[in-house]
Amino acid sequence: MLFKEAEHKRAFRKDVQGGKGELDCFYPIPSEEGPQESRFRMVGRMTLAPGGILGLHTHETDEEVYIILSGKGLYTDSDGRRHEVGPGDVTLTMKGKKHALEALDEPLTFWAVIAR
Amino acid sequence: MLFKEAEHKRAFRKDVQGGKGELDCFYPIPSEEGPQESRFRMVGRMTLAPGGILGLHTHETDEEVYIILSGKGLYTDSDGRRHEVGPGDVTLTMKGKKHALEALDEPLTFWAVIAR
Repeated sequence: MLFKEAEHKRAFRKDVQGGKGELDCFYPIPSEEGPQESRFRMVGRMTLAPGGILGLHTHETDEEVYIILSGKGLYTDSDGRRHEVGPGDVTLTMKGKKHALEALDEPLTFWAVIAR
Repeated sequence: MLFKEAEHKRAFRKDVQGGKGELDCFYPIPSEEGPQESRFRMVGRMTLAPGGILGLHTHETDEEVYIILSGKGLYTDSDGRRHEVGPGDVTLTMKGKKHALEALDEPLTFWAVIAR
């Protein structure tokens, strides 16, 4: 199954999950719009504006991986600790756990993949 | 949970899945080495050498997403059809389905994510 870049849905979201700033999203597989029988619930490439925050939230029923492509950010883990992240870093938030992501002084671009 | 790029395992694999050429792999989460209770079984960034082929294979017990980062390639879907792929294109191979990937005349770099 192929999702061509030219056909990805785009969405500008603001202050996501109680955070702040713009999140520019391209969705090869928008949330709940892929095959229902797939483990993959969402696949999206997102860019958080400089200084933006994707607020702390819990994954109650699924898990999420972030793959950092470019920029520098701060990743908040479920234990509340913050870690600097950059290109190539990967985070995993398991079911029942929390995370947040903040862009430092340049746009932070990452792939987000949710599995249920 | 954070997997820093500097700590990713690296592996050079050859003629993968009956294909040909080198596959240079960085694994934030090597196969079966992440948390056992996670849906995410593997996360890796791979580069297939120009002209290389990652051979046709079936996902019997899991699913895989490829996220193309750079280069041009040919993706073979479960129905045998081949499609040109490039940066930003995403493929999904469901349980019981097949796929293959071939690099054209430049290295093909992609993220591979397997969910069980």
